[in-house]
Parts: sequence; C-alpha cells; structure tokens
Amino acid sequence: MAQRVRVQNFTLSSDGYGAGEGQSLERPFGHADPSKLMSWAGATAHWPNRTEPGGSYGLDDHCARDFTNNIGAEIMGRNKFGPQRGPWENYDWQGWWGDEPPFHTPVFVLTHHVRPSFTLGETSFHFLDATPKEALERAFAAADGKDVRIGGGVHTVREFLDADLIDEMHIAVGQVELGRGERFWTGPEQLTDRFHLERIPSPSGMVHHFLWRR
Amino acid sequence: MAQRVRVQNFTLSSDGYGAGEGQSLERPFGHADPSKLMSWAGATAHWPNRTEPGGSYGLDDHCARDFTNNIGAEIMGRNKFGPQRGPWENYDWQGWWGDEPPFHTPVFVLTHHVRPSFTLGETSFHFLDATPKEALERAFAAADGKDVRIGGGVHTVREFLDADLIDEMHIAVGQVELGRGERFWTGPEQLTDRFHLERIPSPSGMVHHFLWRR
Repeated sequence: MAQRVRVQNFTLSSDGYGAGEGQSLERPFGHADPSKLMSWAGATAHWPNRTEPGGSYGLDDHCARDFTNNIGAEIMGRNKFGPQRGPWENYDWQGWWGDEPPFHTPVFVLTHHVRPSFTLGETSFHFLDATPKEALERAFAAADGKDVRIGGGVHTVREFLDADLIDEMHIAVGQVELGRGERFWTGPEQLTDRFHLERIPSPSGMVHHFLWRR
Repeated sequence: MAQRVRVQNFTLSSDGYGAGEGQSLERPFGHADPSKLMSWAGATAHWPNRTEPGGSYGLDDHCARDFTNNIGAEIMGRNKFGPQRGPWENYDWQGWWGDEPPFHTPVFVLTHHVRPSFTLGETSFHFLDATPKEALERAFAAADGKDVRIGGGVHTVREFLDADLIDEMHIAVGQVELGRGERFWTGPEQLTDRFHLERIPSPSGMVHHFLWRR
C-alpha cells in the first residue's frame, strides 16, 4: 500500500478550535484546559502518554491506538514543539514530553529558525525551514515505507490541507466550547467537497470525524 | 503493556450466527453467503485479503485495520482451517487462503488430529491437541511480546470465553439473518456480566460491538 498522509486524534472544541488563545510555557493550549480537551484520549488504554495500567478499550480506544498504527514519521509545527517564538536563545528546550516523547519515530518540526537535530528516547527531532511538500518528501524518506502523521497544530494541518497533501483525517470533536483561539473549522462541511465524511458519536460524548480523500 | 487475548472483526448475522449450516469445501460458511456476511470488511481499504487499491477509510476501516495491530499470533479452530473432519488422509490441504495467507504470524490450529507444521508466505501453521489454556501459552510464547488473536470459528471463541481467557472482543453484527448454523449469542447482554459493552452503529449498516473485561 502506498505511503499515506494522516491526521490522527486531532481534537477540537465543539466550536472548532484546536487550541485556546495565548500559548505559553505554563499553558501549552492557551486559555483552553488541555485536561478537558483531551480527556477522551486520556481515559483510553492506548493513550500514548499513559504510564499507569487501566483505561477503556471501546471506540475511543480504537481511535487512540490507531495513532501509532503504521506511522513512520510525524511532521509538526513549531508551536506544537514549544512556546518559544523567533530565533532560539539556546537549545535547552527539548519539547513538552519529557525523556520519552510519545512519538517513537523521526519528528520533523517546521520552523523558520532551524537548529541541530537531537534524539530523545526513541524519538528524533529534526528542524526544517521548508514548504509542506518538501517536508513531506523528507518525512516519507524517513518513515521506512510507513505513513506520515501531520501532528498539528491547527496552522500546520491547515497548511497541508491547503497544499492538498492530506489523505485521511481523524478529528475528535468534544463538548467543551472555547470561543476564541486557533480555529480549525466552522464545521466539517467545509471539507466535504474534497473528503468523504463519517461522523461517529462515542459513548464518551466525543464525536469522531473520519475524513478521507474523494 | 501485558500481552492480551483479542477477538477481531468477528462477524455475526443479525440473529447471532457466525456461520451457516453445512460447511464444505465449496461453502466455507455453510448455507451462509460469506460475500454478504463479510461485505462490510471487504469494502474497506485495510481488508486483509484486499489485492486491489481502493476501499473506504471510515469506522469500518478503523476496525479492519486493527486486525493486525500489535497481533503476534492467532489461534483458530480446525473448522476455520479447513472442511475436513477426522484423521487427515494427506497433508495437501494448506488452508483456504492461497499462497499468502492474511495472518503474517504463527497460527495455532486446535485439533484432535495433529499434523506437521508448515509455512506459507509469512504465516506458519502449527497443529495442537491442547486445552485453550495450553494453546494460549504456546501462542503467547510465539507472539514476540504482542497480543494473541482468537480467530474463530464460533466454537473456538466460545471455548476461550468459557475458560475466561478473552480480554477484548470486536464483534461486527450485520443485517443478514441466517436462521440456523453456528450460533454465537442471542445478544450481547449474555456477556455484560463479565464485559463492558459499547454498541457503535456504522454508516454501512453494521453495528460494531466493543467488549472488554470488567
């Protein structure tokens, strides 16, 4: 099967925001409370950041466990990698995720301010000042024949959508309303000219949106 | 994460039958039409027997693609392996699946009539006259730390359920009515004393049942 470009477990508020306003070191999702926004995933057995046993194995977990399934690389925006803006003052910052980031593959960070690659646990981070198409070529080459995940945030997923580079998206829409921040869509109808859409409500209250290229 | 015992893509008629009556070489599912029973999976991009590109990427596909996700071995009953009964007349029969069976792991076939192991493509078949518990020990050891799939048929899944050895089940219930054959349940309520249950209807008309141990 050809390598594909996928968005997985991308979580939005009921009004279509992927993050709140005012990201900072203390508040990676701005004024949004990530524990509320992401609680559907945190409750599952296969939540990538889970350290304790337990969790559910229903629909939400089938989505959560697909996060790593046949994924060989991730591309993310700089704002997902960290709260800094502009030139790097130093290279101390190594992401939000501690010593064992949940990716376990090469990760390509899109930024105008490149810095040296480094490896943390099973994840390597590489910094690219590149177009989406160029970044994707690098990621495909690094993915060992597997698919590439576009990891967010909102701006990065939109860039890849605008370049028509995304094959498939799993978007989880919750019941939390954010009102302001980084808006991904007003609704999935904005994409159905180019994508098939299935809306699958979960017992948790999330609505899973599966979209794939027509 | 500990190794788990999973049932995946196990498909039942609306009245709870996993196969029709009268299995034979010509009719592996007895009087049931497998192309109707399994059409939900056949329509997905990740159907393990798919040879042509195409197919859907929605909820049904997320179930289909989980078939191989972190699975290191399968256990099946002899009636899933072939239509023969009693002692083997010869060892010409190598399963229904042609030169490249869709398992790609060791497969353990439960039978009172053992025969030598053989390898076909990426799948190896091993024949055991053993209890479910003994077979599971062998499969765990062969699974390289991954989970073990109980592949069916109905009788085999019931045996493992009766021995309380199953952690998790994905059961897809269709709209076809069979009326007779090998019945798995009268309804999922029979299992909710021991399992959590989520019933998730799919746009295809299937109802996916996710069950996991309480």
